[in-house]
Formats: sequence, C-alpha cells, structure tokens
Amino acid sequence: MTTSYGLEHRRAPHLELLIVGAGAAGLSAAIYAALLNINTVLLDAESGGGLMNLAKTVENFPGVAGKRGPAIAESLLRQLESSGGRVNTLEAAQDFEFAPDRLRVRTNVKEYRPKAVIIATGLELLGLKEEYGLANERQYLGKGVSYCAECDAPLFRDKRVMVCGNPFDAFLLKRVAKQVTYLGPVPEDYARQVPREIIEANDIAYVEGNLEELRGRHRLEAVVVDGRPIEMDGLFLTKRRATSEVYSTAGLGVDEQGFLTVDRHLATNVSGVFAAGDITGEPWQISKSVGEGATACLSVFRFLTGQEMRNLGWALQDEWRI
Amino acid sequence: MTTSYGLEHRRAPHLELLIVGAGAAGLSAAIYAALLNINTVLLDAESGGGLMNLAKTVENFPGVAGKRGPAIAESLLRQLESSGGRVNTLEAAQDFEFAPDRLRVRTNVKEYRPKAVIIATGLELLGLKEEYGLANERQYLGKGVSYCAECDAPLFRDKRVMVCGNPFDAFLLKRVAKQVTYLGPVPEDYARQVPREIIEANDIAYVEGNLEELRGRHRLEAVVVDGRPIEMDGLFLTKRRATSEVYSTAGLGVDEQGFLTVDRHLATNVSGVFAAGDITGEPWQISKSVGEGATACLSVFRFLTGQEMRNLGWALQDEWRI
Repeated sequence: MTTSYGLEHRRAPHLELLIVGAGAAGLSAAIYAALLNINTVLLDAESGGGLMNLAKTVENFPGVAGKRGPAIAESLLRQLESSGGRVNTLEAAQDFEFAPDRLRVRTNVKEYRPKAVIIATGLELLGLKEEYGLANERQYLGKGVSYCAECDAPLFRDKRVMVCGNPFDAFLLKRVAKQVTYLGPVPEDYARQVPREIIEANDIAYVEGNLEELRGRHRLEAVVVDGRPIEMDGLFLTKRRATSEVYSTAGLGVDEQGFLTVDRHLATNVSGVFAAGDITGEPWQISKSVGEGATACLSVFRFLTGQEMRNLGWALQDEWRI
Repeated sequence: MTTSYGLEHRRAPHLELLIVGAGAAGLSAAIYAALLNINTVLLDAESGGGLMNLAKTVENFPGVAGKRGPAIAESLLRQLESSGGRVNTLEAAQDFEFAPDRLRVRTNVKEYRPKAVIIATGLELLGLKEEYGLANERQYLGKGVSYCAECDAPLFRDKRVMVCGNPFDAFLLKRVAKQVTYLGPVPEDYARQVPREIIEANDIAYVEGNLEELRGRHRLEAVVVDGRPIEMDGLFLTKRRATSEVYSTAGLGVDEQGFLTVDRHLATNVSGVFAAGDITGEPWQISKSVGEGATACLSVFRFLTGQEMRNLGWALQDEWRI
C-alpha cells in the first residue's frame, strides 16, 4: 500500500481545444474548459455573444428570468474571464480540414492545429430575404421577427402573429397567440397536405400575397402585403435554409435541413470534432445552447484523456471512447 | 384574401402533460409548459429542487455563477410560479403504463391519464453503500462526495481526491486535482486493461483496502481505509448502478448503465413519453438538465399539436412527428 503523493496539475503546452463561435454554446463550453484546465482558444468572427445580443427580454432561460439578452451575454463573458478564459474577437474561421488525428482550422489570423474542436457558430439568419427582399428584417429580429415557432411562441402570448413558411407552425402558435394569420401561398411541399381550406377551417386567417415591408418604431407593428398594411405583433419566417456547406465540405455529417449531425455526446462523425448550440438544430434556446456547450466540453475532456491513454499504448475500451 | 380575425387562446380542459420530478429538468420543462399554455401537472416525491438542494456553491451553471444550489432551485420554483405553474409536492409516481395513445401514471394520490409524459426523476444515489456500508455518504454529497468525475472535476482544482470505481476517472481528475489516489482493487472488468502498475506509473497513487468511514466537520476531510485515515478533499464513487427498472418494466428503452434511451428530441421509444435531465445520462449538470427540460417541453408542444392534427384526420408528414 502506498500513500498519496503530490502531483502538480498542469496546463498542456500545446493547443488542446479550439472553440469556434462565442455565443451561448461557445461561451458555456469555454467556461467549462477554463475550469478543467483545458488549453483552449475561443474565437468569434464578431465580438461574441451571438444572437443573445439581439434578444430583448429573455423570459425563457430557466434560472435567469427577465434579463436582457446582451446582459446574459455579458455575464457569460465575465464568468469566462473570472475562470481564466477569454475570447479572440474579430477572428473568423475560414477553412476547416477535419481528419482523425489531423484537425486544422485556418482563420483570418493564423492556422490552428488543436486536438479537439467544438463548432458553435450558431444559425446564420434564415429569413426570406432572397424571396421577399425584406430590407429591414434583421432590424426586427427579437423585436417581432422570429425564425422558430416553438422557441419563441411564449413571447407572443395573446398577440397577433403571422406565419410565413411551414403551416404547422401556425397550428403551434394557435395554442398561445390571440390571432394567427398564415401568409400564403402554401409552399408546394406542404400544399397537398395542408390546402388553404384546412388552414381556414381551423381558425387561422389566410392571407395571400407578397410580403413587401415591415413597419414599426421600436418593434414590429405591421407587415405590408401587396401594398396593404396589416397590424401584426409577430412575424414567423419559418422556411429552413441550410447554411453549413463549409462543414459538409470538410466531411461533417449534416441533416436534411443543414444542421450538423451529432450524437448524445455532441460528437460529430469525425473523431475529435464536436458541435453545440443552434447549429445542432432546434430548439434555438439559450438554455439548450448553454447545456450543450457544457456537455460538449465534458465530452472533449473525456476525449483528450482517452487520447492520452491511447498515446501511452492502451487500447481503449469502448465505453471510454467518445 | 381575408384579414386576420380574433381567436381566443385556450387552455385545454384535459390533462395534456404530466412531468414526473421537479429537479432542474422538471422545473425547466414546467416553466416552458406554463409559458406555452400546456395544461400540466408537475409532481415530486419530495419538496422539489432535487439534487440542487445538496449542492453547495454552483460554479458551473453558465449564466448563473456562484449561487448556492438551493438558491437556484428556489429561483426556478419562483419562476415557475410567476409563469402560472406549481409543483404537487409529496406526490410520488408509483406505477407507469405506457402504450401509444394510452399513458397512465398512478401516484400515491391518484391516477393520471395525460397525453404526454416527461420523466425527470434524476439519479437515484449511485454510491457504494452496499459494498462498503458507508453510513454517512449522503451527508457529504456535494461536500466532497461526487458520483461523476467529468461533472465535478472543476470543483476539485488543486485538491486531493480519491477515485473508487472506474480508473479512467482517476486519469480525468489528474488534469485538475493536485493529488489523485485510486482506491483498489481495480474492479474485475477494468483490471486486465488497467492493472495497478499502469495506474502508479501515471502519477496516480494507489491504495488498496476497504473504505470504512468518511470524516469531516462541514465537508469531507478524510477517508478511513482499513482503519487508517487518509486526508482527502474529494471522493469520487464512480461505479454505475442502474436505477430504472420501473421504467424498463413499463416498456421504455434503457441503456447498459440503466439510463433512459432518448433521441435528440428527448423522445423515448414510446410515443408521447419524453425524458430529460440526469436520468438520460451524463453529464449530470444543472445546465444540461435545464436545457433538456426546455427541449423536452418544446418537443411535447410539437407532439400535442401533431396529435390534434391527426385527430382532425390528417396524415402527418414525417417532419411533424416527434
């Protein structure tokens, strides 16, 4: 029998983890990485905080009720700093090379060769700009415009909302909103299943025309369809658009809607590459992103330890793999 | 073209959702359910709050740093109340009957027939009581005793820890702790892979004997092995024990370690039954539980809407199913 003896913890001299994107998921992962002594770089193409910066009042982050989105982002950034981490702002990942034991990410600043990567770049905005030419859609994001009916339905309780895209979302919103209007025509892939008559028969108003303009002083107050303004508190643009070509080109699995395919450990199909947050699919919620950031970083922790053991010549048992 | 007209939102007259367990996951799901007008009952065998009640300072819930566990539980309970929800305390689910379109849960109070169920009963305590007869293990839970190395490693930075169970966890903790001791003998299923020599060769102290007692005034200060006290700040009891017979008997899929099997929507194998939080597996983190509670409730929202549409005679497209 021996007694325990001193062992100095150490931060690895080489880069262990690169986290791409400093929204809710990336910041959460980076906080965990700092707490776990994982040698990490976190980068963000902008200033960090992601879509939280656009969220007005966040009522649905259990544990943190009624804060403004930017205040939540700020508190995550402060928490990261007090854990010893930081964000490389204005550093954009531009090119990915993902092969097992050979991960490379090139940014506008340099090339990284980390042992593990967490992709947390979130959603690109998925609106209807191209179809409808809505110049000011982004201005109303989080102030009436939403891309996700399940996610944001609670914010439109007893309000008037319009759905443009998947008619199923109009039925979801009926449970919460005061008035639901569907903007037709129904897209071809839904039209056989949900013709206009069925929508109208279910207490959902039906309007057909071109969505031309959004109006409102501080938040959305009306939409203009074929020159006619209709008073409206919310507009749900729920057509999906894939935004992950850069990742599928690098060999990552992507689902039909363009989101990264991950397992319950948030591992992608490439060993050492993980993903967290909005880019793994709905629901697009701060709480889900924060939880996934934590899970992904703990999976990386496990993965790195497994790699160390493998480098010592051990054949890892299955349960120790990610 | 029609204009939009009034549509009163309504709370369904029948029970739509039963949430079993009011820890972090169940409370988060219930907050969402309240915000989404889902007619819900949330019940807890004790007073709610789950394992949060045992957590001292929680440093690793990104967004909510440095709060005491019971304070986080309290703020979730308050958030639920201000959303219009509540917990049925001291109501324990005792019997489950799960078949598609026929969900029944009997408690010590009554029988429920909800349209959907979220199981969020968390971990039963997974310690080594039976093997070691540790009378006071629970007293030190969150105060030195942990069941999950990845989860709680950050809390033991620069501390002395002992691992009893999976030797892999000793290697994980080496990255963070000042001293790591492994309490042998190595369990049979690991012994061929990780004999004592390999553990010792990797700067992990090896002690063999019977763990007889835990000591410490407010938190763990020493463990007693074969009559000899060893100073220790943390003890990781990381043998897994399945605790979900009641669910597998009811037909739910369970993995090798006894956790409920769920997909990315947190749906189990039975239509209408979802699970969230610790019971779906590691990591056992408040952030993961809160995120999963949100996701599970939004999946229920989608499931209930799909069911309504099906009741109207529609054959749902695949993407609308859960």
